[in-house]
Amino acid sequence: MPNISTRGGQMPASPIRKLVPFAEQAKERGTNVIHLNIGQPDIFTPQVALDAVRNLTDKVIEYSHSAGNETYRKKLAKYYQSIGIDVDFTDILITTGGSEAITFAFLSCLNPGDEVIIPEPFYANYNGFAITSGVKIIPVTSTIENDFALPPIKDLEALITPKTKGIVICNPNNPTGYLYSDSELEELRELVLKHDLFFFSDEVYREFCYDEHKHKSVLHLKGLEENAVMFDSVSKRFSECGVRIGALVSKNKELISAALKFGQARLSPPGLGQIVGEASLDTPEQYFIDVYEEYIQRRNYLVEELNKIPGVKCPEPKGAFYTMVQLPVKDTEDFCKWILSEFDYEGNTVMMAPGTGFYSTPGHGSNEVRIAYVLEQKELEKAIQVLRKALEVYPGSIL
Amino acid sequence: MPNISTRGGQMPASPIRKLVPFAEQAKERGTNVIHLNIGQPDIFTPQVALDAVRNLTDKVIEYSHSAGNETYRKKLAKYYQSIGIDVDFTDILITTGGSEAITFAFLSCLNPGDEVIIPEPFYANYNGFAITSGVKIIPVTSTIENDFALPPIKDLEALITPKTKGIVICNPNNPTGYLYSDSELEELRELVLKHDLFFFSDEVYREFCYDEHKHKSVLHLKGLEENAVMFDSVSKRFSECGVRIGALVSKNKELISAALKFGQARLSPPGLGQIVGEASLDTPEQYFIDVYEEYIQRRNYLVEELNKIPGVKCPEPKGAFYTMVQLPVKDTEDFCKWILSEFDYEGNTVMMAPGTGFYSTPGHGSNEVRIAYVLEQKELEKAIQVLRKALEVYPGSIL
Ligand SMILES: Cc1ncc(COP(=O)(O)O)c(C=O)c1O
Ligand SMILES: Cc1ncc(COP(=O)(O)O)c(C=O)c1O
Repeated sequence: MPNISTRGGQMPASPIRKLVPFAEQAKERGTNVIHLNIGQPDIFTPQVALDAVRNLTDKVIEYSHSAGNETYRKKLAKYYQSIGIDVDFTDILITTGGSEAITFAFLSCLNPGDEVIIPEPFYANYNGFAITSGVKIIPVTSTIENDFALPPIKDLEALITPKTKGIVICNPNNPTGYLYSDSELEELRELVLKHDLFFFSDEVYREFCYDEHKHKSVLHLKGLEENAVMFDSVSKRFSECGVRIGALVSKNKELISAALKFGQARLSPPGLGQIVGEASLDTPEQYFIDVYEEYIQRRNYLVEELNKIPGVKCPEPKGAFYTMVQLPVKDTEDFCKWILSEFDYEGNTVMMAPGTGFYSTPGHGSNEVRIAYVLEQKELEKAIQVLRKALEVYPGSIL
Repeated sequence: MPNISTRGGQMPASPIRKLVPFAEQAKERGTNVIHLNIGQPDIFTPQVALDAVRNLTDKVIEYSHSAGNETYRKKLAKYYQSIGIDVDFTDILITTGGSEAITFAFLSCLNPGDEVIIPEPFYANYNGFAITSGVKIIPVTSTIENDFALPPIKDLEALITPKTKGIVICNPNNPTGYLYSDSELEELRELVLKHDLFFFSDEVYREFCYDEHKHKSVLHLKGLEENAVMFDSVSKRFSECGVRIGALVSKNKELISAALKFGQARLSPPGLGQIVGEASLDTPEQYFIDVYEEYIQRRNYLVEELNKIPGVKCPEPKGAFYTMVQLPVKDTEDFCKWILSEFDYEGNTVMMAPGTGFYSTPGHGSNEVRIAYVLEQKELEKAIQVLRKALEVYPGSIL
């Protein structure tokens, strides 16, 4: 029997994978599991987008251009221009989800063994993309005491070695909901210029910025034409996770041309998804206003109620729809398993993502969980009740 | 300015990429370009498949299971069972095209630096998947004199080193149209067992076997449960290239579980594509009969007419819809450029894929082109005329 690859063996399981059997147990005993662990919004996909596929007239579903349909790229470029990002369609590669944009960027920019610095906690799948491309992630820790702000820039600089080729941020952030400030972005800008690094910015939650905060893209920063690489996606913006459409955007021509070759090898991004993505650009403004209202209400409710629970600490996220929450327990993975397998309140229990999966540094995040507020308030209310009651009786509670 | 990666620089351009500007020239001077270079069939997508998307009732297009929808996998398993392949749905991973199945298999089975042996000429994008995964392709040359049959098994065995981890075949073959015989498959079976190798079989053209030949899958071979890995796709089978749906199929549980982790990192395969793929499994038998009739007529016409042209040699392909053709010229790349930029007959010229792009060994294939018969006979007739007339006047003709 031939051995599988060591990298196959190294691929991390998702932070919630270990909880799945425990969630099954809950279901088996008739308990309803409220999923606070997922990033799949419950918001409807825009009607224009759904109509576009329903009205499909093609007789043959053909490969598209490897960089994506030109009509789509042109329209997307217009959208970016409308928010002050100066790109044209040749700076855009349509990808199979934001996921593929990240993989293509790593493959195109970095050699095996190269390092990228990423503030932790970070989106766990960056680990998978790093293993795929043979890249090493060097974490720099942000802390809940500091609302998960960018760590001091000198801490990042101290991690730079001859192998460092880039810095990755996620803005707004999954899992923390943190939105980087203008001055933080400015500090990062100077750092990447000084050390000639790529500045990768994952902006798939761009649309989700709260409290009058305006999103600033890496592509808004001056003098970074060759360094800035942006990842985008229709998944969250239009609640279209399943169509698998994203984008890799950069003014660095050499990079786009290298990434396109990876794109040509896989032939083309999904055709029906591109139809949906292109039509989505005609989504009426009101849709986003409604979505914003919905999320901000959910966030306000959730953060307020979480902080009322004794021993629970939750910074107020300024973006995305996640929050990293500190619980009064020693090991949130044990707690998450326990709550699923042993606890229910009025027929409900909750599934949350244990914090350690979002950190590279061993042991970090063991008293944190990530909670997503992609469920309507009624569900969040039930979830809060479950959590409060559970912490009252959890044997491992350290209140 | 940060440097892009060396692998980004190494990614090969597609065999026809260099011809694109010459095709533009032809169009500019008003000449119609008949595309014999592409693998995009002109056949209609089955009606049931198109209807399935048009009747979409989802309100939210959600992520699917990372391995693909269970209903789809179960139905696909039934199809495989119906052709004597003993798999169940847990042996199947739905992927983003056959392309992703190949990448996932390489990433999961092979370490950077590992080697796979592939008969050349081979599908050029294997080079891209190999660079992505850091794998080295070791070619073994099949020849037109031998109708591109499997080279003697001792030639393959001679190439095995401690780094060899697998053999890749494409059956039926792109670019040659060759269909491996039962005894060739048996020889390969013994070889992989003897040396404990993976046996990767790209079967995306399975449906296209001519002249009463029955397709034999690697998964039909006995005793290869742990070694056999099959790549599949809806692209050609149902003329659905644009939906980007394929499959990785293996009884090797460890492999499927490693590949699934790469699948989880990219979240899910395209959702609309899966709806199309699943519905396509209800395509009426008559569809395939019609498609078969169409292709066999095209093939018969093309092969007969090509062999009538002085100095042209074309083996009779038993599968897929490509044929590797020898032309009486020194360098088919020059010829392909010349015919696009300098020649037309009755307003038409042709675009063909130069042979060298399908070989790893430098210089091989320089008097060959790949021709795809995905166009209706009327177009093929025009193309043959162009080719015949062109070879009569081409200054580099070596007749
Ligand atoms: C931070 C971040 N980046 C990228 C992605 C990838 O999303 P997709 O591939 O659906 O565009 C996600 C999905 O959850 C995410 O949270
Ligand atoms: C031999 C072979 N394998 C795999 C593929 C990949 O096809 P897809 O990713 O569309 O399934 C192709 C496409 O042309 C092919 O010719």
